[in-house]
Amino acid sequence: MTKRYEDASWKESMRIKLDVNNMFAENVGEEHGYTKADVDAMQEKAKVAHKSIKAAKEAGNLGFMELPESHKEIAKEIKEFADANKGKYDNFVVLGIGGSALGNIALQTALNHPYYNLNDEARNGYPRLFVPDNVDPTRLKGLLETLDLSRTVFNVISKSGGTAETMSQFLTARAKVVEELGEDAVADHFIATTSEHSGNLIKIAKEEGMKTYYIPENVGGRFSVLTPVGLISAAFTGIDIEELLAGAAYMDQICDTDELWSNPAYLNAALQYLADQDGKPMSVMMPYAHDLKDVADWYRQLWAESLGKKVNRAGEVINVGPTPVKALGATDQHSQVQLYMEGPFDKVVTFIEVEKYKETLEIADGYEDISGVSYLGGHTFNELLTVEKQATELALTENNRLNCTVTFPEVNAFTIGQFFYMYELATAFAGELYDIDAFNQPGVELGKQYAYGVLGREGFTEKKEEFDARPEKNSDLIL
Amino acid sequence: MTKRYEDASWKESMRIKLDVNNMFAENVGEEHGYTKADVDAMQEKAKVAHKSIKAAKEAGNLGFMELPESHKEIAKEIKEFADANKGKYDNFVVLGIGGSALGNIALQTALNHPYYNLNDEARNGYPRLFVPDNVDPTRLKGLLETLDLSRTVFNVISKSGGTAETMSQFLTARAKVVEELGEDAVADHFIATTSEHSGNLIKIAKEEGMKTYYIPENVGGRFSVLTPVGLISAAFTGIDIEELLAGAAYMDQICDTDELWSNPAYLNAALQYLADQDGKPMSVMMPYAHDLKDVADWYRQLWAESLGKKVNRAGEVINVGPTPVKALGATDQHSQVQLYMEGPFDKVVTFIEVEKYKETLEIADGYEDISGVSYLGGHTFNELLTVEKQATELALTENNRLNCTVTFPEVNAFTIGQFFYMYELATAFAGELYDIDAFNQPGVELGKQYAYGVLGREGFTEKKEEFDARPEKNSDLIL
Repeated sequence: MTKRYEDASWKESMRIKLDVNNMFAENVGEEHGYTKADVDAMQEKAKVAHKSIKAAKEAGNLGFMELPESHKEIAKEIKEFADANKGKYDNFVVLGIGGSALGNIALQTALNHPYYNLNDEARNGYPRLFVPDNVDPTRLKGLLETLDLSRTVFNVISKSGGTAETMSQFLTARAKVVEELGEDAVADHFIATTSEHSGNLIKIAKEEGMKTYYIPENVGGRFSVLTPVGLISAAFTGIDIEELLAGAAYMDQICDTDELWSNPAYLNAALQYLADQDGKPMSVMMPYAHDLKDVADWYRQLWAESLGKKVNRAGEVINVGPTPVKALGATDQHSQVQLYMEGPFDKVVTFIEVEKYKETLEIADGYEDISGVSYLGGHTFNELLTVEKQATELALTENNRLNCTVTFPEVNAFTIGQFFYMYELATAFAGELYDIDAFNQPGVELGKQYAYGVLGREGFTEKKEEFDARPEKNSDLIL
Repeated sequence: MTKRYEDASWKESMRIKLDVNNMFAENVGEEHGYTKADVDAMQEKAKVAHKSIKAAKEAGNLGFMELPESHKEIAKEIKEFADANKGKYDNFVVLGIGGSALGNIALQTALNHPYYNLNDEARNGYPRLFVPDNVDPTRLKGLLETLDLSRTVFNVISKSGGTAETMSQFLTARAKVVEELGEDAVADHFIATTSEHSGNLIKIAKEEGMKTYYIPENVGGRFSVLTPVGLISAAFTGIDIEELLAGAAYMDQICDTDELWSNPAYLNAALQYLADQDGKPMSVMMPYAHDLKDVADWYRQLWAESLGKKVNRAGEVINVGPTPVKALGATDQHSQVQLYMEGPFDKVVTFIEVEKYKETLEIADGYEDISGVSYLGGHTFNELLTVEKQATELALTENNRLNCTVTFPEVNAFTIGQFFYMYELATAFAGELYDIDAFNQPGVELGKQYAYGVLGREGFTEKKEEFDARPEKNSDLIL
């Protein structure tokens, strides 16, 4: 059977587009807008960056670029595994945090029914999905109380196998399963997604006989949505993960050029970089579609953790990094847009627009005698949301506020795959422009080490001592 | 029966605290930290601001300050209405957007079971709560499909009665109720919360015989959580709204001083203001408690829409306003903290800590042979989350990053009421410091008018023409 994503014209019709008109002086004025010459001036740098990315990929250091190809077979296998288990579980729980959770949430919100967990009919036999993504005792206890564990499967996701939050969740869920269902039940109720070669989780998984999936060594957490990290929960909830990878592959092909003017990932990163350099450190992502709100949250990790760095590659202290901010249209017109419109000129807004929503809903007629209400009847919510986006875009533009738009023809696995890949590549490219390592996160180590120390992990007693020796709080400054 | 919030010592034990130690040079170093002299230097300004706030209150212009007193009786009446209807509805739906939605969501997440809508036992006979808070066709259609309308009540919230999103939601929900249950069902399935004296919703409500609650004329959307806007859905889901108001009253009393050093609302606003002036325009609110995450979202509207302003009171163009950012601990340690730790020195982080979570959950023992995992066993998730907060706080402080902490003894209606009030008052005070009108939102008008024009609302044809005459997009800049 031919898949739709094997049809070139369907693919072309589903291409996501980047519209940067409102980043330029013609539209937003000379004080803040860019000129084509500004972009041209970056072309040489772009060529060098492109070469550097290619070389890193060749050297096996940019694993995320290999996934659309390398994970085709793995996706097939995951799909078969999920299909074989359909009907066996009522609940699928992801135990993971950060990069091990955000992609799962983004896929779920983007591609499944908006009230998936509450609507049996819409779910059509697939399990409910839960991603607690934290170690809040109230929430976690509430979850464990709510689920029938005999009908629940947990996917434990930690590349290192040492993530304190995830391993704590796992220990506790496992003990509850053992208590209720017996030791033998562990293999049937837990999947492990981790490094194949190192860490404690792979050891435990083998010991327990858990089904195991691997995270490639050269793919970091925030780039891992197209590995089993994101694919398993998606497949279990009925998402077409092969189409998702096909979307990523399509964007890889679109972006296989070092010409800024024809590479949406590079051009986007270049303009965002320029804006950050020019005193606009905040990058707002504002989809006008509820199903894309958690994709904006996924982006928030990708952009912040990759580009927020103390040192450049030469080791010089530079303390750089734009701050990604997520917003939601039309909702945040009633919350954030006042600031975006009138506050300091310190932001770039990236709108996301959807040409064809999954559903059409008419605004019903009514109150013909009240013109301030009746004008709405006969329109659709689709129109209303689109018009609100265009109206906000125009108002921001007329107020000289930099903005751009990513357009989705539809929200489906193919377009979401494109989006993930486009932003991952933009991140790698931005890393080149900032001249930093976009793939590490040294800044979170210190806090982790203090926590390990206090919790009594072996090898961290020194950190515990440092923690205990922290200055006492001045009680005059607590009120 | 005596209520616990009538007991002075219980109240004192439930007082939320503001810890600003890490805003000062002693802890975060001289380059970024403040000195006591910096605060003292603002004392005169604070006295003037306090007078101005008092005068505005006397003049009836600061309605939010009256609510703890003026809404005592109204809260009682709402509670009686909700109690009388317990068991009648399975679903309570809020139709509203922005300030008419965020408070409802914040209260629900903060005070009800974490899986409230999915857990019948935890819900204990109260209806499920839905706040679609947008006009997304997919989501709204999905919601209407999911609900049994014969067991559903909608609270339509719009002060002006002209909010396009809310009135569209209402028209459509109403038509569905009429279609399924008949014309006569409207009064039984819709509540209106709106201005008593003006607008279309009050007209409609009277015509339809809907139960009606009023939003005081002198309370704007983002300050309205303690009016029927937030109180009705809370009461219907079992939240003690009288305790909520008592919390606000308690904070009002605490903050009844013009001394910066003893007024947590003022001191907080003053320090945030200083930081913004000193090149730190981002104010991150990061609770270490899942139940406070939507309180941070509520704050995001309050702070952004109130303080993001183009002109000062003299009408001079100043384009000011800090950008509030919401984050969540420990989750965002795996997403945003890398940036907060190593990026530019452009943020203040406000942690929220909870001393006693609603539940205690132990981390189970296991894998005694694997020390990198077994050290977790025997601790609680409560400890883990608290230690992670303190570890992150210490690491940020050692990296010279400004931060402060709001501590909740517990998350309950009394402490949440304090929190709302403290931040509302801080916002009014910050408005004085910026010398702007913190209670209007002129910047959202233009976008609204374009939308009205395009949708054909009477009186907006000129705006439609302007919209239609917008410059065409250059297709070279779309890729």
